[in-house]
Parts: sequence; C-alpha cells; structure tokens
Amino acid sequence: MSADSQPKKKLIEPRTLKGFRDFLPESMIPRERLIERATRVYRSYGFCPIDTPVLEYLEILLGKGSDETDKQLYRFKDSGGREVGMRFDLTVPFARFSAQHFAELGTPFKRYHLAKVWRGENTQAGRYREFMQCDFDSIGTTSVISDVETAMVINDVLEKVDLRTEGTFDKFKIRLNDRKILNGALEKLGLSEKVVPTLRALDKLAKIGADAVVAEMAQTAGATEEQARGILELTLARGTNEEILARLEKSLEGNERGLEGVAEVRQILESVRATGVPEGRFMVDVSIARGLDYYTGVVFETFLDDLPQLGSVCSGGRYDNLAELYTKQKLPGVGASVGLDRLFAGLEELGMVEKVATTVDVFLPFFDASLATKYCEIAAGLRKRGIGVELYPEPKKLGAQLKYADKKGFKLAVVVGSNEAEAGVASLKNLRDGGATEVPLEPDALASAIVAALGS
Amino acid sequence: MSADSQPKKKLIEPRTLKGFRDFLPESMIPRERLIERATRVYRSYGFCPIDTPVLEYLEILLGKGSDETDKQLYRFKDSGGREVGMRFDLTVPFARFSAQHFAELGTPFKRYHLAKVWRGENTQAGRYREFMQCDFDSIGTTSVISDVETAMVINDVLEKVDLRTEGTFDKFKIRLNDRKILNGALEKLGLSEKVVPTLRALDKLAKIGADAVVAEMAQTAGATEEQARGILELTLARGTNEEILARLEKSLEGNERGLEGVAEVRQILESVRATGVPEGRFMVDVSIARGLDYYTGVVFETFLDDLPQLGSVCSGGRYDNLAELYTKQKLPGVGASVGLDRLFAGLEELGMVEKVATTVDVFLPFFDASLATKYCEIAAGLRKRGIGVELYPEPKKLGAQLKYADKKGFKLAVVVGSNEAEAGVASLKNLRDGGATEVPLEPDALASAIVAALGS
Repeated sequence: MSADSQPKKKLIEPRTLKGFRDFLPESMIPRERLIERATRVYRSYGFCPIDTPVLEYLEILLGKGSDETDKQLYRFKDSGGREVGMRFDLTVPFARFSAQHFAELGTPFKRYHLAKVWRGENTQAGRYREFMQCDFDSIGTTSVISDVETAMVINDVLEKVDLRTEGTFDKFKIRLNDRKILNGALEKLGLSEKVVPTLRALDKLAKIGADAVVAEMAQTAGATEEQARGILELTLARGTNEEILARLEKSLEGNERGLEGVAEVRQILESVRATGVPEGRFMVDVSIARGLDYYTGVVFETFLDDLPQLGSVCSGGRYDNLAELYTKQKLPGVGASVGLDRLFAGLEELGMVEKVATTVDVFLPFFDASLATKYCEIAAGLRKRGIGVELYPEPKKLGAQLKYADKKGFKLAVVVGSNEAEAGVASLKNLRDGGATEVPLEPDALASAIVAALGS
Repeated sequence: MSADSQPKKKLIEPRTLKGFRDFLPESMIPRERLIERATRVYRSYGFCPIDTPVLEYLEILLGKGSDETDKQLYRFKDSGGREVGMRFDLTVPFARFSAQHFAELGTPFKRYHLAKVWRGENTQAGRYREFMQCDFDSIGTTSVISDVETAMVINDVLEKVDLRTEGTFDKFKIRLNDRKILNGALEKLGLSEKVVPTLRALDKLAKIGADAVVAEMAQTAGATEEQARGILELTLARGTNEEILARLEKSLEGNERGLEGVAEVRQILESVRATGVPEGRFMVDVSIARGLDYYTGVVFETFLDDLPQLGSVCSGGRYDNLAELYTKQKLPGVGASVGLDRLFAGLEELGMVEKVATTVDVFLPFFDASLATKYCEIAAGLRKRGIGVELYPEPKKLGAQLKYADKKGFKLAVVVGSNEAEAGVASLKNLRDGGATEVPLEPDALASAIVAALGS
C-alpha cells in the first residue's frame, strides 16, 4: 500500500566531514579556469610541474611548520606500522623532493605545484580543512632576476583573474619589501639580537595600534621608546616608491645589509617597469615582514583594491636555504603561492565569476526518437570542428529540454526535428534572447553559423 | 680542516613512502598533457568537473568495494575522534555526492572527476599505493544514447594519446559486450541462478584454458558439460561484429533480455559508425564481463594493439543504480574510467611520450650582467605575444647555459650579448641542429622569427 512496501534498507546518510566540502560544477568550472590560467602563466616562464605524494613519513612533516601546523596535522599509523601524515603545505614536500632528487634536477630549478593540502583547522573561523595551494619557486640561484620573475608571475596571474572575460584585470596591488631592510634597520637601532620579538610586535600594528606596539617592544625586546619609535617610523613610511626608498637609504646609511635590501627592491622595480607593468602596481611597504624566520630577502603580498580586508591573495619571498633539514646542499630560492581558495572567494564577492554549470555553449535537444543516430552524427561533426556540444540523452518535450538548458547556462540550441532533418536545416536558437535563425544542417555551415552566433 | 668543521646537524633522510612516488618534470609534463587532452574531450561532450574531499567518513567507504578494498583502505581516527578513510576510488564518493546533492544537480547529470585515490596494495606486484583515476559518468538516464557517448568519449580520448604530436592515434581497439547478453544466455542454458560462479570461472579462461573452465563450472555452478560448453562457445564467438551479433540472435532466440542486449550493442555500433569512427575500432567480445555484480548493461574494455598484455586502459559500462546505499532516489547511469597510470606506462613503452623537462620551447641565455633588465624586457615582450620563454637567472658562460638548455630540451635560444643589443639584433640559435640566424630584436619581428623557426 505504501511506497515502503518493499523491504527497507538502512540508508547511510550522505554527508561530508566537518571542514570539508564538495565542489559542484558551478564552482568547479570557474576554479578549473582559474587554475588553468595560473598554470599557463607559470609555464610561460619555464616553471615545470612536479607532483609529490599526499602522504609522507611523519618525520618529514613534523616540526617543519609551526606548533600550530604540528597540532593540525592529519597523522596516523599505516597498516605497515609506519607513522605517516598528510601534507599541510607544498613547501615541506618540495624541500624533501629537492633534497632527494637534487642530482637529477640540477640547478637552477623552477617548479610549480598545484595540489591539495590538509590542516585540522578550527572550522568555527570559517576555515576549511582541505584546501588548494598553487606554489611556484625558483631554487638554486640567488640572482635578483629570479626575484623579478617572481614579481612578474604574481602580476601576470592576477591580471588574468577576471573569469568572465579574457581581458586584463588591474584592480590589485603588489606590496613588496626586503627582509634585509628590516634587519638592517634593526641593526642600526641596536636591536639586531631582538629581531623576532620586535617583528612579532610590529606585525600587530594594524590590530593594536602604535602605542601598544611600542609597549610590547619594550616588554618583549627590551627596546627603548626611541628604538621602538624608530622602527615604527621606518615601517610606516608612506609616499611614492622613490620617496620611500630615498628615505630608507638615508636612514640606513652605513648599514651594508640594509642598503643591499634597498638596492634589490630598486632593481626589481626597475625591471618590472621595463616589462610594461603599470606604474603604481608595485608598492614598497616596509611593514610587510611575512612571518619571522623563513624569509631572508624580498617579500611580496598582494591585495585586491576593492577587498583589502580579504588579506593577501598571493604571497612569497626569498629564502636562503630550502632543504637544510634534509641535505647539506644549500638551496637558496624565491617563490610565492597563490591562495586559490581565498582569491576565489574574493572574486565571487566581486562578481568576477561567471556562474554556469556547463562546459560547452551549445545544446542539442533530442526530441525525435527516430533521429537518435542523426543527433550523434551532428554532435560529432561539431566536435570535430572544435565546437563542444551536449546532446540531451533522451526524447522529451522541447520545453522541458530548453528549461534544462537554461538552468545550466547554455548559450545556443541547435534544434532539429523531423521536419528540419528532412529539409536539411537546423533552427539555431539563441537561449539568451530567444531569437532563432534557420541554418543548413551541413557540418561546416552549421559550425560557421554557431561560431558567428557565439561571437556576436 | 674538513668540510664538516661546522657543527653537524642530524639530517632527516629525504625519502618517499613505499608504494608512493614523486613525479619529476620529465614525467609530469606529459602526464599533464595527457590529462588536459582527456579533459578537453570530456568537456566537448558537456561533462562537467566536480571535486570531492580526499577524506570521507569511514561508513561511506567501508563495504562499498570488495573485501580487498576494505583491507587496503587508509583509515584512521581524526583528532575529533571521527573514523575516517582516504577514498579508494572515485565511484563511491560520486555515489555519496549524487545522493547528497541530487536536488541541486538534477538529471541527467554528466560529471568528470580526475583525482588521486589510495589503496594499500601489495607493492611487490609493481603496484602503487597512490594513483590517478579519470572517471566520467552520465547519470539519471537509461538512454542508449549515453552508452553511445561513453563509447565515443573513450574513442576520442584514445585518439589523442600520442603525446609527441597533435595527430590522431589509431592503434587501439575498444571491445564491447552487454551484460544482458551474458545473463540471457545463462537463462537460456538454465544457469540463471548461477551467474556469479559461472562468470567467475569464465573470467579465468585466458589463464587456465577451456577444459579447466568447464571443470570449474561443474564444480562451483553445478553446470553440466553441455551447459558449460554452451556458454564457452557463445563467449568465444569470433568473426565480424555482424556475424557475432547474428549468431547471438540465433542462440538467444526467445530470450527477451538477451535480445535486448544484442539490440543495444547494435544501436551503439550503428551510432559510432555514423560519427565516422573507423570500421573495426569497436569489436563485439562476449567474453568481457567486467566484474560480476556492478554492471547491468553495456560494458567496455580498451586495448592498445601493440601492448595487449598491458590489459584494458579504459573500462566501464552501464549500471542500474549508483547510489542505492545513500538514497532511495534511483540513479541509473553509464560511465568509464581511463587508467591513467597504466595507459601512461604503455605510452612510454611504445615511445609515444616526448621526454622534455621544460614547458617552453625558447631559452634566453643571460651572459651580460649589464643587460639584466633588457633580458626581462625581451622575455616579457615574447610572453605578451604568446611565446613562453625561460630566462636563465644569472650571468654564466654561454656554453654552460646552452648545456643546461640542451639537457632540458629547449628548441631555440635567443642569444643577445652586448654587441647584439647595441646593434638591435638577436642571434636565433636552433638547439637541435646548431644553426643560427640573425633577427631584429624588435618584439614583433623576433616573435615572428621564433614562430617560423618552431614551425619548421
């Protein structure tokens, strides 16, 4: 009597783990587009893809990030009794990889790696426990040219993030600094033994304000008020890049390390200018430190003009030695990472993500069962001419099929009923404005008509 | 006195877990190419990308494959005490995904999913514990048109696997069968209660020979010699597709289910023929059963002509209900999976994988320090014109740089020393034959010369 008259099966509730998510086509299609565009930029500079296992020996991963990453690590004993962990970033596996394959890779070596990483983050903060990283690095060279290329790659990727168009996006800024400038300044101020607590206090500037930073520097770094104000003044310098650099040169006079940092920043700015990057895209910002221990030279952060509160969507910098925990081989390098999930969230908020649930523009309704083979033939003919097309799989009323097409976001429908097939024509229907034109069913003519209709 | 005079640090041995591997650029570049080509085919049919988490609740994964997959599962308790596991295939997550998002997705729904899966395989068999699956499925329809499309996608992907060229590969065969044919035949022979043991014995035919199969069928399925020879005869039928189908129609006379299977195969062959697939590409092979429980209609296996022993590189078929463990919603479908790692191994063996360790063709040596910015400018000008170029990051003797370029596999070098820069020219060096021509350093002219040189 009821729909349940057949023996009940106990169903398993279909659900994802807390902090994990599925991606449906509507999100995954633009994500793939963004990844492809970033990849195309990386490749255009000669960066090469690599891949490493998701699982690593625990000893490779443990103690390589912070206490925080250790705590958040997904770790377990595998069935062979090995202590293993899921990677929490792509840098540690790259360090292990570089040490392991050094002889084969040679230097300089430029790699990109786009892959998922896992961290047992607090999900209350809106964070995910599985996310994508898109790293690129040049190792085995200390040349400032690699710093320049890092800057240019960040710029080129960001210029391509408007997923609605093939055009150039320009509402973003790349802020750069050099750790040598900060270190030089601390040396000059007599704080060179107190770099870590000083910069840690400085990092809180936006949150707690200047006075509290001065107080913290006094407490944790033993800095006098004068020393603290001195470092604050330097990092708060505003003006044109040239003004800031000139002021830094004056403040750092006689400090070799600090002046070296200024010269590097100057060279980077000069080179990116020569490549035609718009004035003002790169901004010197001495307050950017990017963590405390890792970076040793130039550092970058990238912000969307209209969403400064989003934070940096692409960050990186130069380091002295990538893989010192795994090899005696010294591997200096420079690189950056696109924060794909954060960037994508920003693009969605700015309306720069086209919402479609189809990978093709052309829809081929199926509404005459006797034409099944004909439909396959028409679709194959278009695909051979480079036009993707989705054929509805079964006969149904045209209205229902067009509703499906509309929901998915197709642009054109090629309507062929028995009358059209007999007359050797198709009705090419524009799904946006509802207009229709009759075109020949012959593959070349049909393909041309579609290309013309999509282009207009 | 020694290189070790500095305090020794205990290094961690850089190594990957047993059964896991790194991919260096030389392998990863062609792998990415293969993945891109497969993706392009999937998309051209309107298949859409999805993604699901690597980790799932254990109850989602457990008992969904075989005892074998349960045993091989990477499973653990996460720090929140949840029992979790790493996915061992992409079908079970897709079943969970379809049940969970059914209302939003609607039907028909066509997805592709290219991602890694994990199984604690016996590595002595040369198997890896982390590998890539490339699945595509159409769900929510029982139409034979979706079977046809599955066949065509397999064909189109395989036609694109020669990674040395953009041309069409044709040395492969797709074997197809229909489970209804096998089931109908077993019904007719009075073995319909013994499908599982009968087909399990049949699966061993190539290994143990006909007589042993007959013996096993007698033992495990209680089949008489006549019944066993009957099923053997049917599955061993050779000849043209039409001859085999005609013979099947005769043997299956009066058995509705079996004849339905024959009709489906006929429709698929007719439709793929209409799309221009070469005669002989698809072969009816009644011995193909593809596992015992899962498939209910058409089944496919794909073999490279020159490496039959490699096994099927792309397999799939039709099933009645994808997600019955998670939802009452019935989801019939059809799909297949490209065995990327196996296929790639085959392509390497056949010499169809070009070995390069660069993503660009053009190398720009750096051998005059004063031209650093000029080099950045030249490289940027080429990239703007769609030509990828790698700039060597530091000044070095030209010979050493060209050795690097040669090792990586670049095709052209754009040589610009101070003399060339002053004269406004570049020397365009063909790295294959050593020939060189002088071209203007102006970006458009240089780009045209490079395109011409690469095309020849």
